[in-house]
Amino acid sequence: MSSLNQHRRSFVPELPKSIEDINQLCFVQESAPTFTDSEVKDLISNTADQPLLRVEQSEVAHPNPLKVGVVLSGGQAAGGHNVITGLYDAIKKISEDSQLIGFLNGPSGIVDCDTMLLTGDIVDRYRNSGGFDMIGSGRTKIETAEQFAAAKETATKLGLDGLVIIGGDDSNTNAALLAEYFVKHQVKTSVVGVPKTIDGDLKNEYIETSFGFDTATKTYSEIIGNIERDSLSAGKYYFFIKIMGRSASHVALECALKTHPNFTIISEEVAAKKKTLKQLSNEICDMICERAEKGKNYGVVVIPEGAIEFIPEFKVLISELNDLLSKEEHTDAIASINERTERVKYVAGVLSERSSECYQTLPNDIQLQLILDRDPHGNVQVSKIESERLFIELAKQELKRRKQKGSYSGKFSAQPFFCGYEGRSCLPSNFDAQYCYALGHAAALLIQSRATGYMSCVKNLTAPVSEWEIAGIPISTMMVMEKRKGKLKPVIRKALVELEGKPFAMFTRQRDEWKLSDDYVYPGPIQFFGPEEITNMITITLAEERHHLAQAVS
Amino acid sequence: MSSLNQHRRSFVPELPKSIEDINQLCFVQESAPTFTDSEVKDLISNTADQPLLRVEQSEVAHPNPLKVGVVLSGGQAAGGHNVITGLYDAIKKISEDSQLIGFLNGPSGIVDCDTMLLTGDIVDRYRNSGGFDMIGSGRTKIETAEQFAAAKETATKLGLDGLVIIGGDDSNTNAALLAEYFVKHQVKTSVVGVPKTIDGDLKNEYIETSFGFDTATKTYSEIIGNIERDSLSAGKYYFFIKIMGRSASHVALECALKTHPNFTIISEEVAAKKKTLKQLSNEICDMICERAEKGKNYGVVVIPEGAIEFIPEFKVLISELNDLLSKEEHTDAIASINERTERVKYVAGVLSERSSECYQTLPNDIQLQLILDRDPHGNVQVSKIESERLFIELAKQELKRRKQKGSYSGKFSAQPFFCGYEGRSCLPSNFDAQYCYALGHAAALLIQSRATGYMSCVKNLTAPVSEWEIAGIPISTMMVMEKRKGKLKPVIRKALVELEGKPFAMFTRQRDEWKLSDDYVYPGPIQFFGPEEITNMITITLAEERHHLAQAVS
Repeated sequence: MSSLNQHRRSFVPELPKSIEDINQLCFVQESAPTFTDSEVKDLISNTADQPLLRVEQSEVAHPNPLKVGVVLSGGQAAGGHNVITGLYDAIKKISEDSQLIGFLNGPSGIVDCDTMLLTGDIVDRYRNSGGFDMIGSGRTKIETAEQFAAAKETATKLGLDGLVIIGGDDSNTNAALLAEYFVKHQVKTSVVGVPKTIDGDLKNEYIETSFGFDTATKTYSEIIGNIERDSLSAGKYYFFIKIMGRSASHVALECALKTHPNFTIISEEVAAKKKTLKQLSNEICDMICERAEKGKNYGVVVIPEGAIEFIPEFKVLISELNDLLSKEEHTDAIASINERTERVKYVAGVLSERSSECYQTLPNDIQLQLILDRDPHGNVQVSKIESERLFIELAKQELKRRKQKGSYSGKFSAQPFFCGYEGRSCLPSNFDAQYCYALGHAAALLIQSRATGYMSCVKNLTAPVSEWEIAGIPISTMMVMEKRKGKLKPVIRKALVELEGKPFAMFTRQRDEWKLSDDYVYPGPIQFFGPEEITNMITITLAEERHHLAQAVS
Repeated sequence: MSSLNQHRRSFVPELPKSIEDINQLCFVQESAPTFTDSEVKDLISNTADQPLLRVEQSEVAHPNPLKVGVVLSGGQAAGGHNVITGLYDAIKKISEDSQLIGFLNGPSGIVDCDTMLLTGDIVDRYRNSGGFDMIGSGRTKIETAEQFAAAKETATKLGLDGLVIIGGDDSNTNAALLAEYFVKHQVKTSVVGVPKTIDGDLKNEYIETSFGFDTATKTYSEIIGNIERDSLSAGKYYFFIKIMGRSASHVALECALKTHPNFTIISEEVAAKKKTLKQLSNEICDMICERAEKGKNYGVVVIPEGAIEFIPEFKVLISELNDLLSKEEHTDAIASINERTERVKYVAGVLSERSSECYQTLPNDIQLQLILDRDPHGNVQVSKIESERLFIELAKQELKRRKQKGSYSGKFSAQPFFCGYEGRSCLPSNFDAQYCYALGHAAALLIQSRATGYMSCVKNLTAPVSEWEIAGIPISTMMVMEKRKGKLKPVIRKALVELEGKPFAMFTRQRDEWKLSDDYVYPGPIQFFGPEEITNMITITLAEERHHLAQAVS
């Protein structure tokens, strides 16, 4: 174990004053019943319309020990272990005889009843540590009748008072469905969700942020800042940095606000303005040309992982390609052509005019990749396109054209980079360590209060930790029906970057200046010791959004 | 400016006791004349055989102000700005009227006399900051007679007492040649070198380490550790991490010692054991298969940037390809073939048997890249091969074969990663900040003592900063003649990883265990505040090597 890990193990997360004496608290109804979408209600009639919950003093003379299960679901996010240590400490405060059981390797651990008793020794080893390796994670969903029945059997066999599901939008939806199933089948187990995702797209009027977003954006911003400074120092490279976050651009936006790159794509804006791939590439090239005129042949471009999937014409192209490649006449025809360029010509010839144009914008390798490299269902694998490399290729082509026309005379040398996996399992920042520890406490109290189908909530996060408040939010109130792969399903809608929101407004106010001036900011590595304004810094997104709300209320 | 950058600006590097009172010190001869290689001596007869220098008390009643120029040469390394701030503070301590002049954008700034007066205000803005953006850097070498004459003119026009060249082996060689030229042409300017390179390959019996190595390896190890933890948590990816350091594997070795990945290639070992690409790939696959038997379908492989160039058969292949592609009969023949696979077949057919075998081991894309994508001199561009992707492709091929044979039944899903530019311009660690600040002081004192052709040296680096010592090392004693591109040239030989050395021995003692057990260490981000054992940690390489020497001496 590294020295820093050892030191972090003994860090004691501050607890909000409101939950310090957890054994003298319980959740009570705060609001009238909340509204559940009527179609969703048809699916979860027993747990719909539940009220918001707030804490209240309530001395329990002899609290019963709690037996609680916990599972990590989906991709890693810094702080996951602290939800578990918070949960552990909280149920032990409620009763020394409480027990915490970890389900191994994700929700399949519930179905298969694959468990590990989490003793104090084990829990202590993982305090304030990164990763999900304490009990592992996985992406299995509890969906089939058999899986639900197996979950019921596990909960009953273990006699669980509560089951805490730490996960993103899908996993929390799953938690709500499991809560309903348990109520319907008279299983006593309360099911509680915890909002996790580095993508930052699980948030709403109640949930201020998901855990992991703070640490991931700080880690990526350290890297982006380092690269900016390197780019400026050497003066000869353009870095095209793709950044994790497929479905929303919160991570890219937060990192842009932290580091001021020369150009940042925000996917939601691309979709709203119906930009084409060509337009986007041209905008990047305009910036490169303007900078070249100032003698600057370097810079940094930030691209959200899911950017190209937000381009309307690209979506159409992919759907046409999927259609086309599902027909034997076309696949046979393509297979019979030996020459790569001829294959591309064939495909371009059968697509609609607009899609054909978009397809022909793409570099040759990607044209081929799209028709040859398909997933087991025969679908085009958009996620395999390395968009940082795609945009480099497009810029090369366009700059070559401009050079021939005489409108550009700079040098273009580009380096691709991907900010991804290294931001998910890092040591949690103080914010995430403390937020998660509090989330674990809130989850324990929800179980103690016999609430089910709720999400653990810690709010007032822009205030000092001591002033944070906890709440219970019915997951049902966040759910809507959406078509996914052709079938109507209950989902928690992902929060996209709001183009009317304050973080995006802050970005648009400054981005033109960032293009030409090198207004780079170098946040540096996350600090765990030292001045509080450094160690306890919150994200700009959170500060801006909540400041906005506070103003709106006052 | 970020909060952390602001705080770091006011960090005051501790100075070794031995140079605290720089205005009461001077360098004196420590040794008899050192030995200069006779062929090198022919080139630098005026500055050959100089003695080592050590500091001594020597009160100068009215020291003359110094006028000093400074230049940053080559790739960025954390701490460069602190060499300059150290140099500035030191010459100002010697006399308030001293002046520091920065040459802009590398050695071309000397040739073109492109300068900036470095005032206190400017210098203060860059204290303890990363990057080289204070005065920029560049890769121009002072080589031609005209360039030397121009450098002389600049030094004379500005009336420089000293010129400090901050750079790697080539730049320091250049410093020695410039020193000789100045002495020969009666220019008073002392030329002093400072050992910079994140690669860690500029070191010898006198120079314990180059600056930037500490910060770069800490930054990469933060990332590798994060990725290891992610790999372990998800249990489904192999990460193939290429790591900067083309000519030597010190960076990969140090990071391996810090993070314990499952497999690390050390290029020097590959060369010594004459391993083939196939063997290396097989070793990686053996590890993957053994892990798969334990149910582990994840892991981390570290590959030094220059690995494939160290593979003997690959070197031969490249030289044969260069030869082949310089002949029109072959290029014409290749051009006349339309089919890609047929082109490859043609090339494989005309190579020697061994090279043909090696060529056919390569994935198709790289086979083509090698014959099609050549540099302006017509040479094959080995450096463009993304070795992390190459090893993934080779592993895929081999594992597919093993699966068909029934000797492997695991899943192999791999992610490439490159630890590179983000490690060069980061905020310097305390070690690099203080080492560089002391190097700047030593450089000032060498100039004050009228020493020329010397490298600034700070030693005893495993001791607390207060006990560090400074010295002057004649660059000539490090120089030998070597063939570069067919011409015999004076060079400072790059220090490779010593297979008999202690760091490598430490690695070989543990690497077998790291293969199967997940003995990952997560160093986390560089800390600037907090416990000294964290903030002031030195590299394992330095600790091991110097411990070894200390033992040998005692």
